[in-house]
Amino acid sequence: MLLRAYQTGKNIIRSIAASLLIGVIVGAIDAVFGRGLLAISDFRTEHFTYLIPFLPIAGLLIVWMYHHFSEISTKGMTLVLEMGQGKRKEIPMLLAPLVLVGTWITHLFGGSAGREGVAVQIGAVVSSQIEQRFHLCGDKKKMLITGMAAGFGGLFQTPLAAAFFAIEVITAGKMEYGALLNSMVAAYTASYTSHFLGLAKFAVPIQSALNMSQPCVLGPVIIFGVIFGLTGRFFAVLLKYAKEKMSRFFRNPYVRIGLVSIPLAIILTLLYQGRYSGLGTNLIAAAFEGQTIFAYDCLLKILLTILTLSIGFQGGEVTPLFSIGASLGVIVGKVFGLPPEVCAALGYAAVFGSATNTLIAPVLIGLEVFGTDNAVVLVLVCTVAYLVNGNRSIYTAQQLEW
Amino acid sequence: MLLRAYQTGKNIIRSIAASLLIGVIVGAIDAVFGRGLLAISDFRTEHFTYLIPFLPIAGLLIVWMYHHFSEISTKGMTLVLEMGQGKRKEIPMLLAPLVLVGTWITHLFGGSAGREGVAVQIGAVVSSQIEQRFHLCGDKKKMLITGMAAGFGGLFQTPLAAAFFAIEVITAGKMEYGALLNSMVAAYTASYTSHFLGLAKFAVPIQSALNMSQPCVLGPVIIFGVIFGLTGRFFAVLLKYAKEKMSRFFRNPYVRIGLVSIPLAIILTLLYQGRYSGLGTNLIAAAFEGQTIFAYDCLLKILLTILTLSIGFQGGEVTPLFSIGASLGVIVGKVFGLPPEVCAALGYAAVFGSATNTLIAPVLIGLEVFGTDNAVVLVLVCTVAYLVNGNRSIYTAQQLEW
Repeated sequence: MLLRAYQTGKNIIRSIAASLLIGVIVGAIDAVFGRGLLAISDFRTEHFTYLIPFLPIAGLLIVWMYHHFSEISTKGMTLVLEMGQGKRKEIPMLLAPLVLVGTWITHLFGGSAGREGVAVQIGAVVSSQIEQRFHLCGDKKKMLITGMAAGFGGLFQTPLAAAFFAIEVITAGKMEYGALLNSMVAAYTASYTSHFLGLAKFAVPIQSALNMSQPCVLGPVIIFGVIFGLTGRFFAVLLKYAKEKMSRFFRNPYVRIGLVSIPLAIILTLLYQGRYSGLGTNLIAAAFEGQTIFAYDCLLKILLTILTLSIGFQGGEVTPLFSIGASLGVIVGKVFGLPPEVCAALGYAAVFGSATNTLIAPVLIGLEVFGTDNAVVLVLVCTVAYLVNGNRSIYTAQQLEW
Repeated sequence: MLLRAYQTGKNIIRSIAASLLIGVIVGAIDAVFGRGLLAISDFRTEHFTYLIPFLPIAGLLIVWMYHHFSEISTKGMTLVLEMGQGKRKEIPMLLAPLVLVGTWITHLFGGSAGREGVAVQIGAVVSSQIEQRFHLCGDKKKMLITGMAAGFGGLFQTPLAAAFFAIEVITAGKMEYGALLNSMVAAYTASYTSHFLGLAKFAVPIQSALNMSQPCVLGPVIIFGVIFGLTGRFFAVLLKYAKEKMSRFFRNPYVRIGLVSIPLAIILTLLYQGRYSGLGTNLIAAAFEGQTIFAYDCLLKILLTILTLSIGFQGGEVTPLFSIGASLGVIVGKVFGLPPEVCAALGYAAVFGSATNTLIAPVLIGLEVFGTDNAVVLVLVCTVAYLVNGNRSIYTAQQLEW
């Protein structure tokens, strides 16, 4: 009895030590990756016309990198999720540097893509490697999830959302509560580490609150949920469709990325000199600072992000999804005569939740980024969005529990 | 394709119609049950000394009722959870009136017990009966969960917490998202219905907020989570232990309830004339109105509730858990020099979550009862409480997903 308690205690302490270690390492890498990405994005914005013509060549370089070093790593998040589901024993170590550099290149030359999938993949690789070498925890799956949480938490500095994202994303409807403690520790550690290393947290404290007790608010809130949910669903479905069609139509990945990048670069240039290039943080800023948001911003960002990702460029989907949700939120808020910044915040969270088929993570990211004044509305909108997304997910390897 | 879409649409509409119907009926029963219970509680408080001597006879009456009408119904929530897990095909219809009347009797004569388990059982019985007779939905499990959500939502008028409680309580770690839409519809409908029928919602809008960015706050918040979590765990473990010991020591249920009620009635009388009788709403009111809370209030409420329930009295556990958490929160808040009402709110939610082994429901009940100012702290405290409870649950039939 005492021996068992001692063993259990020792195991918990070892696994927490591993989580702290993972948090520090992944948080530091996130800081480098995130700060590098922001610097690259600023540089691109300033020198857009000189950089965008090289988008096709950048694409060829990315494909060559993956082909040369680790072909299987092109599968990205699929590898991580499959390992979480026990279908795969390991993830290639090269995945981390490849996806990091590939994403930097994508962003430098004006592709439209995200960053969080990258951070999650890096976190997963680092934690798997640490577990494989030092056997601190003894539970591969737990450490994988811990690394995912650290990656997300270090990049966005939203540790609660990060921990819950990692435990709910692998299998929809199943919460990997066995890894919750480690994920929380790693996500908080990574978040503090990257903050300490100078990566700024994006946060917009929103002061105005929707009054849910008014019937003229409940109706629109449900409609918002439906709209955001269908938008996320549309993104997930179209991304899958585009990836399939592209790889069937252009069997050679060099031809695919080299050829399709040319019209993509032209479109990105013609549309306001790169308004839809990069992460979409420009759209997010515009949405919350009351600058111009066009009604078609969200649609164009959807299409160009999908085009960028489906031909082989690297990067995540989440920050573009945030920007799509925020710009859509401004528009629907204006239509219903409700505060645009509140609706932008709701869209920011709910479109992300719908497209990733998660529910707890988007609510928590809403709380951690925008403050708590609209917490109940946020839960309701994200729940409705989750209900109408039909379990579609940008992570095609995500399983369904039921 | 079109035919399938038509069929799917028809099924969804039928199941939503069923959820609305369940919401209205269960909400109405909840209003009768809840208002009756509050009236009975007031009556008992006023005439305590005349009523408490009859506690043993009330106990005998309850045991006779169950023995005479439906012996198996004593299993209560176990029947509901087992049906949710597919281990049982139906729940006896008599469960609903028995548990309703049994709870009223328990409270009239001064037992310490709750009400939500009762409402959940009533909801489950009503929805199962409706499904069995009218086949509106075609999915027994979905309708069972819908009824549970309606029962909880109608009684507490916290529809979000109710819907998520119903989908997460049956199997820990598994979210029954397939029933989320119906649960939401039924919980909101039941909540509006019971409110319309004059059942008041308990809500304490809390204005002061803990500032999480201060390190002197994060530490105590984690400690609170540990304390609340261990308290809920202690309650769940002791309740199970007491039930087993009691039924082994007194094999005859009449002897068990008749004999043990005598010292129970004496203790309840000696301890401030019934301070620990009933739901514990007196302790909750004292906690939030700044009245006297003794350091031993929570412990006595734990012990007397467990004694009441373990010898065969009827009622739920959740409102006593709320009162245990709130009175404990006041004490720990004072110890750490933090606003007692905020800590009471945190304890209210977290002890309930820990004892029921749920995580999303307690967070949502905190938001719906106390407002959103402390949302992030609430998530953190409930998560820590969930982590230290070791998957113990007052619902012994609850399964574990992992």
